[in-house]
Amino acid sequence: MQMSRILILGAGLSSTNLIEYLLGNAPAYGWTIRIGDLSLEAAAGKLGGNPNGQAFKFDIFNAEQLSAEVAWADVAISMLPAFMHPVVAKECVRQGKHLLTASYVSDAMKSLHDEARQKGVALMNELGVDPGIDHMSAMRMIDGIRNKGGKITGFISNTGGLIAPECDNNPWNYKFTWNPRNVVLAGQGVTHFLENGEHKYIPYHRLYSNIRTYNIPPYGEFEMYPNRDSLKYREIYGINDIQTIIRGTLRRSGYSKAWDVFVQLGMTDDTYKMEGSEMLTKREFLNSFLPYNPTETVEEKLQRVIPAAQDKIIFNKLKWLGIFDNELIGMANASPAQLLQRIMEEKLGLEPNDKDILIMQHIFDYELDGKKFQKKSTLTLVGEDTVHTAMAKTVGTPLAIAAKMLMTGQVNDRGVVMPIKPHLYNPILNELEEYGVKFVEEERQL
Amino acid sequence: MQMSRILILGAGLSSTNLIEYLLGNAPAYGWTIRIGDLSLEAAAGKLGGNPNGQAFKFDIFNAEQLSAEVAWADVAISMLPAFMHPVVAKECVRQGKHLLTASYVSDAMKSLHDEARQKGVALMNELGVDPGIDHMSAMRMIDGIRNKGGKITGFISNTGGLIAPECDNNPWNYKFTWNPRNVVLAGQGVTHFLENGEHKYIPYHRLYSNIRTYNIPPYGEFEMYPNRDSLKYREIYGINDIQTIIRGTLRRSGYSKAWDVFVQLGMTDDTYKMEGSEMLTKREFLNSFLPYNPTETVEEKLQRVIPAAQDKIIFNKLKWLGIFDNELIGMANASPAQLLQRIMEEKLGLEPNDKDILIMQHIFDYELDGKKFQKKSTLTLVGEDTVHTAMAKTVGTPLAIAAKMLMTGQVNDRGVVMPIKPHLYNPILNELEEYGVKFVEEERQL
Repeated sequence: MQMSRILILGAGLSSTNLIEYLLGNAPAYGWTIRIGDLSLEAAAGKLGGNPNGQAFKFDIFNAEQLSAEVAWADVAISMLPAFMHPVVAKECVRQGKHLLTASYVSDAMKSLHDEARQKGVALMNELGVDPGIDHMSAMRMIDGIRNKGGKITGFISNTGGLIAPECDNNPWNYKFTWNPRNVVLAGQGVTHFLENGEHKYIPYHRLYSNIRTYNIPPYGEFEMYPNRDSLKYREIYGINDIQTIIRGTLRRSGYSKAWDVFVQLGMTDDTYKMEGSEMLTKREFLNSFLPYNPTETVEEKLQRVIPAAQDKIIFNKLKWLGIFDNELIGMANASPAQLLQRIMEEKLGLEPNDKDILIMQHIFDYELDGKKFQKKSTLTLVGEDTVHTAMAKTVGTPLAIAAKMLMTGQVNDRGVVMPIKPHLYNPILNELEEYGVKFVEEERQL
Repeated sequence: MQMSRILILGAGLSSTNLIEYLLGNAPAYGWTIRIGDLSLEAAAGKLGGNPNGQAFKFDIFNAEQLSAEVAWADVAISMLPAFMHPVVAKECVRQGKHLLTASYVSDAMKSLHDEARQKGVALMNELGVDPGIDHMSAMRMIDGIRNKGGKITGFISNTGGLIAPECDNNPWNYKFTWNPRNVVLAGQGVTHFLENGEHKYIPYHRLYSNIRTYNIPPYGEFEMYPNRDSLKYREIYGINDIQTIIRGTLRRSGYSKAWDVFVQLGMTDDTYKMEGSEMLTKREFLNSFLPYNPTETVEEKLQRVIPAAQDKIIFNKLKWLGIFDNELIGMANASPAQLLQRIMEEKLGLEPNDKDILIMQHIFDYELDGKKFQKKSTLTLVGEDTVHTAMAKTVGTPLAIAAKMLMTGQVNDRGVVMPIKPHLYNPILNELEEYGVKFVEEERQL
């Protein structure tokens, strides 16, 4: 039976390219697409009056509505916040309908694997950019090296969502091109990776002083801090005997040293609410993390307590953010992280003509015929505008391609599926190149 | 009706003095005392063949046994781990029996307040040393200052359980006189206090470099790091308009700088298990938190990454602990904190002839008739041996006195009770003096 009905739940920023792709392909394949969002306006906006779809107001907490919508669909795509996916997934499995998401496989999702297989349902996950394109491009390289008999010894993989160089006009060389909250909380907990056979653990308060630098032409120098858990990729990628495995986040050089001032002071903590936070000015917020001393200014205390803030470049980044200003923040019952996010959002939001850039680079070390090689694969993609961002394109397009493959019977995998097999990653990566999502490879003998 | 039956649940180290006091008073008051512990041997050992009591094997997870024991008793005393108190408390309230503990009032305990009051049951808590003697001695001072018309502006209260000076024979000037796990985890989370009207927040990784020093004759210099939440005492003590309130933990000078090396490296983290922990030597454990670099020794890396470790006194403390040794730790599935605790326990345990010391000092600033005063109250108590420690005496004796008062009808409070009223703290503090638990007060005009 030909599938023709696609249900999209969630019409936020990241679903722009997904919806455009599916609407664009709808006439050729005879698809009808229903787009649901808590905001009917958002859903209707994404539909844009296209005759091949309908927009509707959707509430994930309305079980009856969810059931009716899933009943209508052949395939559902959840662009809702990740913690809501299992609710959709359970209903899909119950009714024998396929589901796709761009998010990590949660334990709740994993637990549906057996039942989904039995019912012939595909629960396809990790089909965005990170997770998603990272898996596909890494696995294509891993399989390529292995197929010619190579033994992989090291894997370093770095990704960054940044402001495009031509729109980079602030001292942090950074703007929020994605969820600001994730940026403020990035790296909390312990970071664990493997380097030359040694397990290494970095506590959060040392993460931003443990950076490494990478030069990525034509864009120049970037710094990388390692992500929390690099080790889980050993198993997913089947590279259990690897000696070095590190996944990292890219920032423009100089970012981490300045950000580390906030980390050192405890201003990124999200575990408690500050007393009387609604009354705090930016300057008082900062002073809450500095010692009491009426004979010093806040600036003097900061530079005494955190000597790195004596560096002019670092100090100017802090000053530019407005952290010394006698200006109310105006957030009640807020954590330090929430207050800091509010301060940053005033300064680091995208401007109307801004474009973002997405950078992803894999570096593999491997041995072949007794020789050592290094192979790099690099994706750089500049967004079109603040809606068609590189981030929205790389999150939405692979998901859309996977949905097309599933609708047209090219995916026979059932249960919980990740795009780490050639019959999935090859067609997706190949089609992504038509959208400018193209990895450039280079290789050298060490 | 005269009460005569006391049920003691838990016969660990901290119940020594409690049980001795109650058994000693049993003939005079006609009491019978049942002592239950998961280890019958421990319960019997504490009873020591005394004819006024019985020892039995007790399992908190055996609801039937709990119910039968509570049915027998007039008053129960829980010396079980604090998280088990609510189980005992619920059964006591159900059967209309009184309960005493030395632990903080938990939310679960608090929720029983109304029902306990209705049934005429006293749930007396925070009757040990900290919490316990700290409340009683502080409230006596607060009430004293207020009664003469003084206005309290500042309150700093510091407590330390340490090794007595005459038994102090290691470079840390510290031994475990209490729960080692609490020592390793001390200060995790954020520390919040009020200083001259300003709210101050210190993240864990900066706590041990934010110490203050106090001279406490005749013992000399101590350092203090603030405890997590000093602010909650404002409300409990009714001093809501206070400008400075800090509660702290005392250590011998030099401890914090060395301990901070472990904190900086992340070796006190208890939130994750280290891969292959059963195979780690002490040296490898340390190296897991240092950068990969085959051309440097572990010692060199440590001193480069944490410059404080270049200080000879600090370095010698670390070396003395054995942290550089190529010796297996031997703990499977362990967190960094658990491994560090194991290493420390080998070196910092009490020796057979050791005595502990307990130090508690309150410092109040207050205003009276336009003048400013400072009043100090200091308790120092040296233990008798490794069983009759100052810690066991100060935890158990106030609890025992409170039980006696309750049994003899001197306590009419019902519901959840803390010893912060004169009719409770005065008789307890007065009788404690007979056991050498005596605060020395001094006062000066500022």
